[in-house]
Amino acid sequence: MVAKPRGTRDFGPTEMARRLAFERILDDVGRRHGFYRVQTPIFETLELFTAKSGEGVIGQLYAFEDKGGRQLTLRPEMTAPVMRMVAEELRNETKPLRLSYFGQCYRYEEFKKGRYREFFQYGIEIIGAPGPLTEAEIVATAVNMVTEAGLTNWQLRIGHVGVLKSVLGALGLESDAKDGQEAPVAIAMRLIDKGDKGGLETFLTSQHISLEDAEPLFEIQGLSGGVETLDQASAILSKMNDIDTTPLEELRTTCNALAALAPEPPTMSIDLTVARGLDYYTGMVFEIHVPELGGESQVLGGGSYKLMHLFDLEDLDPCCGFGLGFDRVLLALEAQAEAQGRSEIVPGESSGQPYIAVIAFNIDAQHVLPLVAGLRSKGIRVDIELRGRKIGKAMSWANSIGATHCLVVGPQDLEQGHVTVKNLGSGDQQVVDMAVDSVLSLLN
Amino acid sequence: MVAKPRGTRDFGPTEMARRLAFERILDDVGRRHGFYRVQTPIFETLELFTAKSGEGVIGQLYAFEDKGGRQLTLRPEMTAPVMRMVAEELRNETKPLRLSYFGQCYRYEEFKKGRYREFFQYGIEIIGAPGPLTEAEIVATAVNMVTEAGLTNWQLRIGHVGVLKSVLGALGLESDAKDGQEAPVAIAMRLIDKGDKGGLETFLTSQHISLEDAEPLFEIQGLSGGVETLDQASAILSKMNDIDTTPLEELRTTCNALAALAPEPPTMSIDLTVARGLDYYTGMVFEIHVPELGGESQVLGGGSYKLMHLFDLEDLDPCCGFGLGFDRVLLALEAQAEAQGRSEIVPGESSGQPYIAVIAFNIDAQHVLPLVAGLRSKGIRVDIELRGRKIGKAMSWANSIGATHCLVVGPQDLEQGHVTVKNLGSGDQQVVDMAVDSVLSLLN
Repeated sequence: MVAKPRGTRDFGPTEMARRLAFERILDDVGRRHGFYRVQTPIFETLELFTAKSGEGVIGQLYAFEDKGGRQLTLRPEMTAPVMRMVAEELRNETKPLRLSYFGQCYRYEEFKKGRYREFFQYGIEIIGAPGPLTEAEIVATAVNMVTEAGLTNWQLRIGHVGVLKSVLGALGLESDAKDGQEAPVAIAMRLIDKGDKGGLETFLTSQHISLEDAEPLFEIQGLSGGVETLDQASAILSKMNDIDTTPLEELRTTCNALAALAPEPPTMSIDLTVARGLDYYTGMVFEIHVPELGGESQVLGGGSYKLMHLFDLEDLDPCCGFGLGFDRVLLALEAQAEAQGRSEIVPGESSGQPYIAVIAFNIDAQHVLPLVAGLRSKGIRVDIELRGRKIGKAMSWANSIGATHCLVVGPQDLEQGHVTVKNLGSGDQQVVDMAVDSVLSLLN
Repeated sequence: MVAKPRGTRDFGPTEMARRLAFERILDDVGRRHGFYRVQTPIFETLELFTAKSGEGVIGQLYAFEDKGGRQLTLRPEMTAPVMRMVAEELRNETKPLRLSYFGQCYRYEEFKKGRYREFFQYGIEIIGAPGPLTEAEIVATAVNMVTEAGLTNWQLRIGHVGVLKSVLGALGLESDAKDGQEAPVAIAMRLIDKGDKGGLETFLTSQHISLEDAEPLFEIQGLSGGVETLDQASAILSKMNDIDTTPLEELRTTCNALAALAPEPPTMSIDLTVARGLDYYTGMVFEIHVPELGGESQVLGGGSYKLMHLFDLEDLDPCCGFGLGFDRVLLALEAQAEAQGRSEIVPGESSGQPYIAVIAFNIDAQHVLPLVAGLRSKGIRVDIELRGRKIGKAMSWANSIGATHCLVVGPQDLEQGHVTVKNLGSGDQQVVDMAVDSVLSLLN
């Protein structure tokens, strides 16, 4: 038998109801924060992603050649496609753009729990309005999304790549690449991001920076904690000459705005070494982690970045946004629901609305159809028994599909113009006129 | 600049709002008719589609080999994937299954208006309950979907492939293939489907059937019209010996049930020659056409079919379902809206809800953020001016994003704890306390 491809999933009715409920929550939070959904194709020109992430990315892509010899790939993420779309279609719209998107992404790798070859990402971007208030709007939207989805015990890590760059600059490192060599600041940032303390010390020494002078750098790296960390960082920076304190002050503004825009996260830590491993981040960077997920605890990440210059739209850089791992948040919600003994994983996944199963028993089903159509036109979910089951099995069918009420019309009911309405929750049973309003009056 | 791949589309905020509204309508009609959304991967094993449609289908597929040497393809349609999913995941669920699905499909061909290489399909299937009532449920759901989406002037064509097969059988043609030859009934059906009258006559003669005896066949083919056509067909069939009238009676039952389950379509025609060109259809077949779309007028099509035997689940055959061309229905709705001078294409595409633009003018934006957060928590869409525009340009920004109300807080407002609320539709302006309830009371 043909099976689904390795690393992909099918979503049955129950799981899909949960996913649609989660998507609705994200859309609703996005809407209230001013975002508009957009959509791009599932595949893109390969060049779009190599331009963003380098040729090295190809090994993890589902790349293929179409019959016209074009190099295409299933998208591994959606920020670059959305930037491309803005460049192609939305460059003349009023700025900033507040865009949101949702869909499948693909990566070619061994799959394990929570990491599939086909996975789903929800993301938002503010394009064309740099600054700390924009950054706060982005983080606030993220915080409100995971909060309204019901996630608890999560951690927000927030930083600003500009702070370390300021310190490195004040130490005398060049931020520009020269003679085809990687810029000294970039090399140091990479070593810091990797947590390679020895490598960093060796590198600084090679750049004629004494470890004594570099002490403030190590102190900044050692900081961790809540918003008070910003004051500690200020104190450290104040000991240095010619240092640009703008990034730290921007981060403070962002954190203040965030406190007003979003409920306090369960845990918030300022981490001035968060660099997110990608050199297109330029300002505030943040991540949301869920400890229940163990080693791979991150469910969301983003920040301010420059990519629009790839499309000759430098005036829109930096943008700010995040990607939310749709599957990973669901995994976290499932783990937390299980630990807390909750049966509802995502708020609203079960409708709680009436659901009627109609059984025409030993009569021509034609007689009940006007009632079926009438109830549906009132917004009620109505299913009809279609396999001609005997009454006992028909009642079992009604229970097994999760109906809240069962309507039975037998020969005698039909003769009298009646219908028997059974509440499958309480077991109560009543006989009423075979009319939409009579049935509606019994649904609670 | 990197462009989107040929034959694909981006959907900006306005178009996406329309598409999401259309999807919501389809989901809501589906829900009321008892259907549950499911989802399958974007790509499948190539074999799934060659098993269903033959090797010939490969030329139109986006087929590719993954790094493990697996032959995969972007899905060209979703019925086969849903059948595969049922076989893999849902075979033990209570039958029938009422499933709906929505997503991208792919075909490799030259694209033109309304036919893209990446296109969207919405479909439903009832699996595990053959019969005319099931068929009526399927057609009723289709009719209610296009009706609630606002489509007018559409035509329903409905038939039953069993009727012609009965006539061909009564004429003495074999319905089973023998000695590796195509079955005579299948050959005749194909010629009828192609409208090849000469070829059909030649074939019948070769099978020793006189054209005089075949007269009822030609009469059935010549029928067209509303439900009265069923009586005309009955009269024709009654002149033949040993004919199975079950298919015609089933179609009558389906049409009667349909009349009860769905409002009368603008135009309904019984067409006993509709075969939908695919030999897996076994019973009722139907199509919905929109004349405004010209030569390619079909927007929806389906019927009863056998595919579950491919997965060793013969007891679930025949299934019944349809595929709705999501893009084609939208194209038809756009054409009709334009002809009728309507600006709303899909009901509900514009929310009609309050949308507030907040402008912190010459003050620290921090002061307005609690109000912003408070309004959002009440479900209101709120955007903040992020580019530090002067007041005139900020008001233009508020208008251009489509806000219904603008909130301005300047230094004097701030001092007095006030906010100026301007209704951008009426131009009315009022000054109220800077409090969520005060602002809410002004929104209509």
